[in-house]
Amino acid sequence: MSVTVAVDAMGGDHGPSVTVPACLEFLAAMPDTRVILVGQQAALEAALVTTRPALRERVSVHPASEVVDMDEPPADALRRKKDSSMRVAINLVKEGAADACVSAGNTGALMAIARFVLKTLPGIDRPAIASQLPTRSGETLVLDLGANVNCTPAQLVQFAAMGSALATAIEGIERPTIGLLNVGEEDIKGNDVVKDTAELLRTSGLNFYGNVEGDDIYQGTTDVVVCDGFVGNVALKASEGLAQMLYDFLKAEFTRNPLTRLAAIVAYPVLMAFKRRIDPRRYNGATLVGLRGVVVKSHGGADVLAFVNALKRAHAEVEHGVLDRIAQRIAGMGVASGDAVTTSDAPGSSGPTAAHA
Amino acid sequence: MSVTVAVDAMGGDHGPSVTVPACLEFLAAMPDTRVILVGQQAALEAALVTTRPALRERVSVHPASEVVDMDEPPADALRRKKDSSMRVAINLVKEGAADACVSAGNTGALMAIARFVLKTLPGIDRPAIASQLPTRSGETLVLDLGANVNCTPAQLVQFAAMGSALATAIEGIERPTIGLLNVGEEDIKGNDVVKDTAELLRTSGLNFYGNVEGDDIYQGTTDVVVCDGFVGNVALKASEGLAQMLYDFLKAEFTRNPLTRLAAIVAYPVLMAFKRRIDPRRYNGATLVGLRGVVVKSHGGADVLAFVNALKRAHAEVEHGVLDRIAQRIAGMGVASGDAVTTSDAPGSSGPTAAHA
Repeated sequence: MSVTVAVDAMGGDHGPSVTVPACLEFLAAMPDTRVILVGQQAALEAALVTTRPALRERVSVHPASEVVDMDEPPADALRRKKDSSMRVAINLVKEGAADACVSAGNTGALMAIARFVLKTLPGIDRPAIASQLPTRSGETLVLDLGANVNCTPAQLVQFAAMGSALATAIEGIERPTIGLLNVGEEDIKGNDVVKDTAELLRTSGLNFYGNVEGDDIYQGTTDVVVCDGFVGNVALKASEGLAQMLYDFLKAEFTRNPLTRLAAIVAYPVLMAFKRRIDPRRYNGATLVGLRGVVVKSHGGADVLAFVNALKRAHAEVEHGVLDRIAQRIAGMGVASGDAVTTSDAPGSSGPTAAHA
Repeated sequence: MSVTVAVDAMGGDHGPSVTVPACLEFLAAMPDTRVILVGQQAALEAALVTTRPALRERVSVHPASEVVDMDEPPADALRRKKDSSMRVAINLVKEGAADACVSAGNTGALMAIARFVLKTLPGIDRPAIASQLPTRSGETLVLDLGANVNCTPAQLVQFAAMGSALATAIEGIERPTIGLLNVGEEDIKGNDVVKDTAELLRTSGLNFYGNVEGDDIYQGTTDVVVCDGFVGNVALKASEGLAQMLYDFLKAEFTRNPLTRLAAIVAYPVLMAFKRRIDPRRYNGATLVGLRGVVVKSHGGADVLAFVNALKRAHAEVEHGVLDRIAQRIAGMGVASGDAVTTSDAPGSSGPTAAHA
């Protein structure tokens, strides 16, 4: 199938210097795809001047005069920047001109705008941020990683259904196991929200494994781990901080004295493998799941390699019909959206956060 | 000063085979200390038969007929096992026969019993679990790591005051910086509890740095990081899981082929340094802070080295007058205990959890 991706070409820390080469690399690797670069037309056209014709004819440029700043409050971006590259890219998905949107911009703004423009899928109260984290033997899909700091049990069950559908679509797992992140495995553990969520999940028809703990994420105990965005974001950031500290520690140890410097030369391939293992670029591309459209958030600091991965992720979600699968899984579960009490709905208040900014 | 530590000799995965040798090592290293071993008298006396007289005269055995199981519900341990080694050890602190209690037993039961027997310090609604985590340049004291899955802003402020007092007592930092764990650094981020807590901390007189994120724990951005027990426990367990995965990955990489096996020989000191770095035994000894008595929880799987560290931690807290310092810091802050709404008070319901079991 032919897939068209609208790209917020101005988003992220590096803007077109990363997004344009990444799009060209993506097009070269994936036949039968098209890219719409959204942003400042003159600059983007100029960046494409040397592109070979076979690729150039699969890229179009769509003008947008404004750019959402990385630290702009989501509510401001939503209300005031109607012609931002981010918003116009999402509009293209809404209008059917593109199948998916990818942005490395401000996460909170992306969530607020995508939600406002695209709306949520039937049965979904709030979108979530989902991403894969590495495990001993593969990956675990974790959600929510920061979109919702307060969640009701019904919303967490919706996250479980969306995670299940994503794992089926992307990884081909027929009945993905669902773990509920908690402070202990026993049923009596946790706060009331988590306990009520577990009750709902048991009768949801999803493949509910039960409670899991923080270390289960990296042990790959379940295919999907569900949590609220506050807990998920802290766990993600703590993990990133620890991995970086341990890598820096290894590097410092290997340069401590002549003997360890010698060891470093011999151990170089292992060190590089370690670095790859903890490299967030490999896992770049968090899905804003639950919207009526495929929206993928790249890390703000993404380089070309990382941004290509985010584009591929968007492509895979379109190709594997993630939206239909989510709708089916929600319908199959019979979760009434009306059961959910949305506690704080205003973007920018306790709404989207900059989990991946 | 002379310090006497009551030890739950039966607690933990290994019981007296770890606790007794650890106590003897502790006594040998720390002059002017005494240990009361609490548990099954005959077994403990037998384990001490070969002890040299100079140490033996600083150990006494106090009988207790029962043992709290590692997976026993805290409420059951509290109500039914009045003569458990854990409870009798805590009683000795209450009666003034010991200055501190150390246990490697069931965390939830230890918290429930300690709270029931010792009560909380004036101005403290609920005790918390505090522990040091490694950073690039030292340690960060994090609390709560799992005692309270629901916290009010007033309780989180009390945790901040306790953490501040602990950091002063143990590490000699005069005005420790306090970070509030959140999903972003901006004031608008986070849920209502965190926002209200930040407001209270700003006028508390404590050295409040502001919001911190998960990675700040390992960057050592602040001396103390405050969070509720749900978030803290997930962050701690996720970190443990990730560190273990990365260590296993390094080991596997170094044994992949003859070249990397050669590299492993040369890199052995670095590997060992890495292992020490992530070794939870170095940081063994979580403080149950906020009680009218010093109670230190050792990891359930602690070996002799780790248990010695827990004993030393209890000793340091007594020596540096942690309890008085907490009382002073709370009094200096003028936090009214009555402001706090204790949401779920029954042990075993949403009360203590097995963060360190």
